[in-house]
This record gives sequence, C-alpha cells and structure tokens, in this order.
Amino acid sequence: MYIGVDLGGTNIVVGLVNDAGELLDSKSCPTGRERGFDAVVDDIIKLSNQLMKTELALNEPVKGIGIGIPGIADPETGVVISCVNLFWENVPLREALEKALALPVFIDNDATLAGLAEYEVGVMKSAKSGVFLTLGTGVGGGIIMDHQVISGKHGIGSEVGHMVVGENDIPCNCGRKGCLETFASSTAIIAYTRQHLKEYPDSVLHECSANKLENIDGRMIFDAAKEGDQFALQAVNRLAHYLAIGIMNIIAVIDPEMFVLGGGIANAGEFLLERVREQLEKEKYFPSAPIGNLCLATLKNDAGVLGGAFLAKSKIEKR
Amino acid sequence: MYIGVDLGGTNIVVGLVNDAGELLDSKSCPTGRERGFDAVVDDIIKLSNQLMKTELALNEPVKGIGIGIPGIADPETGVVISCVNLFWENVPLREALEKALALPVFIDNDATLAGLAEYEVGVMKSAKSGVFLTLGTGVGGGIIMDHQVISGKHGIGSEVGHMVVGENDIPCNCGRKGCLETFASSTAIIAYTRQHLKEYPDSVLHECSANKLENIDGRMIFDAAKEGDQFALQAVNRLAHYLAIGIMNIIAVIDPEMFVLGGGIANAGEFLLERVREQLEKEKYFPSAPIGNLCLATLKNDAGVLGGAFLAKSKIEKR
Repeated sequence: MYIGVDLGGTNIVVGLVNDAGELLDSKSCPTGRERGFDAVVDDIIKLSNQLMKTELALNEPVKGIGIGIPGIADPETGVVISCVNLFWENVPLREALEKALALPVFIDNDATLAGLAEYEVGVMKSAKSGVFLTLGTGVGGGIIMDHQVISGKHGIGSEVGHMVVGENDIPCNCGRKGCLETFASSTAIIAYTRQHLKEYPDSVLHECSANKLENIDGRMIFDAAKEGDQFALQAVNRLAHYLAIGIMNIIAVIDPEMFVLGGGIANAGEFLLERVREQLEKEKYFPSAPIGNLCLATLKNDAGVLGGAFLAKSKIEKR
Repeated sequence: MYIGVDLGGTNIVVGLVNDAGELLDSKSCPTGRERGFDAVVDDIIKLSNQLMKTELALNEPVKGIGIGIPGIADPETGVVISCVNLFWENVPLREALEKALALPVFIDNDATLAGLAEYEVGVMKSAKSGVFLTLGTGVGGGIIMDHQVISGKHGIGSEVGHMVVGENDIPCNCGRKGCLETFASSTAIIAYTRQHLKEYPDSVLHECSANKLENIDGRMIFDAAKEGDQFALQAVNRLAHYLAIGIMNIIAVIDPEMFVLGGGIANAGEFLLERVREQLEKEKYFPSAPIGNLCLATLKNDAGVLGGAFLAKSKIEKR
C-alpha cells in the first residue's frame, strides 16, 4: 500500500493506493497556502495519518509516500527548490514529512506524476517510454522510461514547457523568451488572439466575446476554430506548430514510444490531435522514420494522487 | 572480447576491445562508398575475421560486434534507415553482418557511440548520465543513461543537432529551419561570418583571409576571437548562445549530470567553454537550481571503435 499526495495551490488531496494501482480511499482539505509551509505540512501529515488508521491500511501497511508539487525539488535532499504557487523556496519538505510519518517520502513535480499515472494505469499502460504534456495556464511535462520518472540529476528534467522552440517577445515565467509555454499554453493562445483579433474584422470571435477582449478564453477560440473561423484556426494552428516543434525536440533527445496531451487545451480532443499531427508531419527531421504515437490523456482528477503513489512504489522497488 | 566498428565516409576502422574497455588491436581500410553497400559490408566482414583470427581473440572469444554509422538505424530490425554520407537508405546491415559473422551485431549512430566511449572510459567515466555533443560540419549527439545509449524507440533519439533552438532562414540538411546544427556547427559559424564580414571593415578577418571569404574557416574565426576581434567574438558568442539554448533544451528533458563537447569546434578549448558557460547562466530557467557540468571530450580517434565495442557489451549484458 502507498500514499499519494497531490499538493495544489487550491487543495491538498491525499489518497491510499494499493499495489495494483487502485485508489481505495482519499481525503482532502483546502491548501490555505497563505498560512505558510508548516501549516500546509501539518495538514498533509494529518490527512495521511487519518488514512493510515483506516482498516484498509491496517491490513496492509503503507510502505511509502509520494507527493506531487507544483514546482521542483532536489531529488537527493528532498528540499523543494521552488514552488512559486505556494510561495515556497528551499523548504525541507521530505525531512519534515519523514520525521512526522516515519515512512520514506518521495517528491516530484505534479505534471510529471500525472504522466507517471498515465504510464502505469492510463493511456500509456503498454508503452516502455512515454511523455505526458499538460497544456494549461503553463506547459508541464512528465517523462517516464522503464517505469521511472525522468526528473534528472538536479530535479529540473521533464520541464518541457521551458524548452525554447522559437523566438518571440513574450517573457516566460522563467524570465527567458521563446519557451514552449509562451507558444502552446492557454495563456499563450489567449494572448495571441487578443493581440491580433482587431486585424480580422470578420472573425466570429468579436461576436462570441461580445466585443470584449477580456471575455476571450481558450475554449472560445477552439470552438470558433472548429466552426471554421479562419483567424481562430490560424491561432490553433500556430499553437499546434510550436507544440509539434516541442514534440520533435523531445524526440531529438529521447525518441519515446508515445506522447500524451492533457490539461485544459487537450479538451479540444481529436480536433487538436489532428492539427498537431499535421504539423508533426512537416517537422519530422527523418521523414522516413516513424515517430511516437500522439493521443489524449484518459485519467482525470485522480492522476496526481495515483502518480504520487506510483512514484513511491517505483523508488522503493528500485532500492 | 568485443569488436567495435567505426564506419565513416572515408575509412572503415575495426578494433578488438577487451572487457575492460582496452583497444588491443585494430585494422582499417578506405570505405570506398562509391562501390555500394555489398562491397563495404564485405570489407567490414574481412577486417573483423582478420581480427578474430588473431591470438588475442582466440584466447578470449568475441561475444558481439557494435558498429557506428554516420546515420540512423532501426534498433529493432537493424536496418539502416538513412546514411546520407554513404548513399545508403533502408539497407539490412545487421542481417548481412550477422549472417556472415555468426555473432550478435548492434548498430547506432557514430556520434552517439563516441559519447558512449566518453561515458565508459573518457571524461564522463564517473557520471550516471551524460550528453556528448559533437560540433563539426554538423551537430551530432550521444545521450547515455545508466550505461545505455538513448537512441529511442525508432532510432532517432540522441539527434540533438535537430532540436529547434531559434528561428532563421538557413535550411538544415533535414529540410527544416531553426535546428541547432544551423547555429552551432562549424558550417553555421563560417556561413554567418562570411555573410556579415563586410559590415565590419575593422575586423582582422579581412587580413587573415587575404580578403577572400572562401578562405575563412572555423579555426580562423576562433583565433581572431581569442585575440579580441569584436566581430569574431560576436560570431563565437552567437554560436555559444544557441548552443546554450540547445543544452538547456536537453536539460528540460533529461537534466543529465554532464555535458561534453567534441568535434572540430571544441578544439577552441577552454575559450569555448567559458563563452558557453556565460550563456548558460543567462539561459537557466530555474536560476537557483544547479545544472550539469560542461567539459571537453578527451578521447580522440579511438572513440568510435571503443563506442562500438561498448554498445555490444551493454546490449549483451542487458539481455
């Protein structure tokens, strides 16, 4: 049995997951990040202890805890290096939890762990290597090879949103320019659409947004594109183009068996996949060699907690 | 004992390597690529058989053969998908060699295998994961994690020269634009210098090249930069800038322990390393997290043959 923790900016969810990867029970509470590190850690401990006292956990003891954070941690020390959303910087998360819970604790990025869940029990179940890309406010990623998450020597691997894929003048959250995140996130496509809409007086987006740029959101853009609006389609194709470059950049490093798209933008479903596949065909550097399959994520809200549990399982089994 | 083969556009080198990774004996002949696939394969077979009949090999039998090609091969079928330099496309190299030599044959890209040699007995000897970048006419790469080369599901991984790192109008050999190879190869820096020299009438490169653009080569540019020529320094810094982006893109995927630079451009030595390190500091996406060490390749001509032998060893031991 393992405990998986999904630590988000809004909620903390803690779940009990058996060796077969089934989520048996879970508990949650608001994160209350303004209370600071100690209070958030206390809540994780409290919820974990509650789960460990349930009959399920008493029958089959918990071997370890895996926790997904919206940031990065040093894999060797378990110190959270940066977690902007929670206002955390260099906090000893693993030490605090291990002391209180007397169990091995493993920490990784939340998108990376959602990818691990897709790999173990989701759409990548039968793949040997796979990459999960979450396209939301930002672009996150999870790379899994042979059941191990690739977080790298310093904990900053699987950060595919910060690959440079082109040149633009939009500063990324990381302070640089040209990151995939500034081209392929919902933030990016919304900003692009708001900036250029005035050049397309015939676009239905004027009407859909009641002529207010601030009303434009990602869904509105994709809906308009699906209905054939030329400007919206151009915005979607631009996102697909840079996403395809990002995917090819990952291929140029590890050439995985599969790619999986998740996050808000992936709600556009097959329509998005088709646009990205079209762009991938143009971006192949060895046109005659096949590339990994592209598909949509299947797990929803549970991915984070499951991923945490699988992280603990994979690390403990590898010892 | 293993046999390593370095199949280049000019020469075929075949070597006998013991389990400790020492090159004990080697034989070579011109490639004669214009003779076609069968004749080249016959020469590899002939040289391998000669080595296997030496006393060294009779005492300790050869377990397998690893071969580095200037192209890509399908890791499952052993078919060479593309080898532009040798005019090969979809040729059954593994099948042909295994039939004649009755030994398991493994094929990978030559730069990838040079990286494997650096990992096993060169500058990456004590690292768990490392990336070798060869900066020559093109940009090649070798990514090694836990003693295994990362060639990917379809044999097109470790092709870091085809990561897109910016936008330009120079078509890459792969047909795309913006590839690292079009910014950080010797071809790229020479083309850039030839194109822009006229804008810098004070540059020493006018004199060094006897006012003939075609005389400008990579060494001349680096020598001028070392002597403080502003335009040459700008060209070097531009190469270093895009190389740093390429390195950060690799970090955003696998965050390895080390980076090693080889190939003609790396002859600029510490001067190049300093420029690239400077650019890396600007390109870090988590400024507070450390990144892998950057250093120079140490193995020279033997890297290809050694890498071939290590490929065979790693694959056979993993079975």
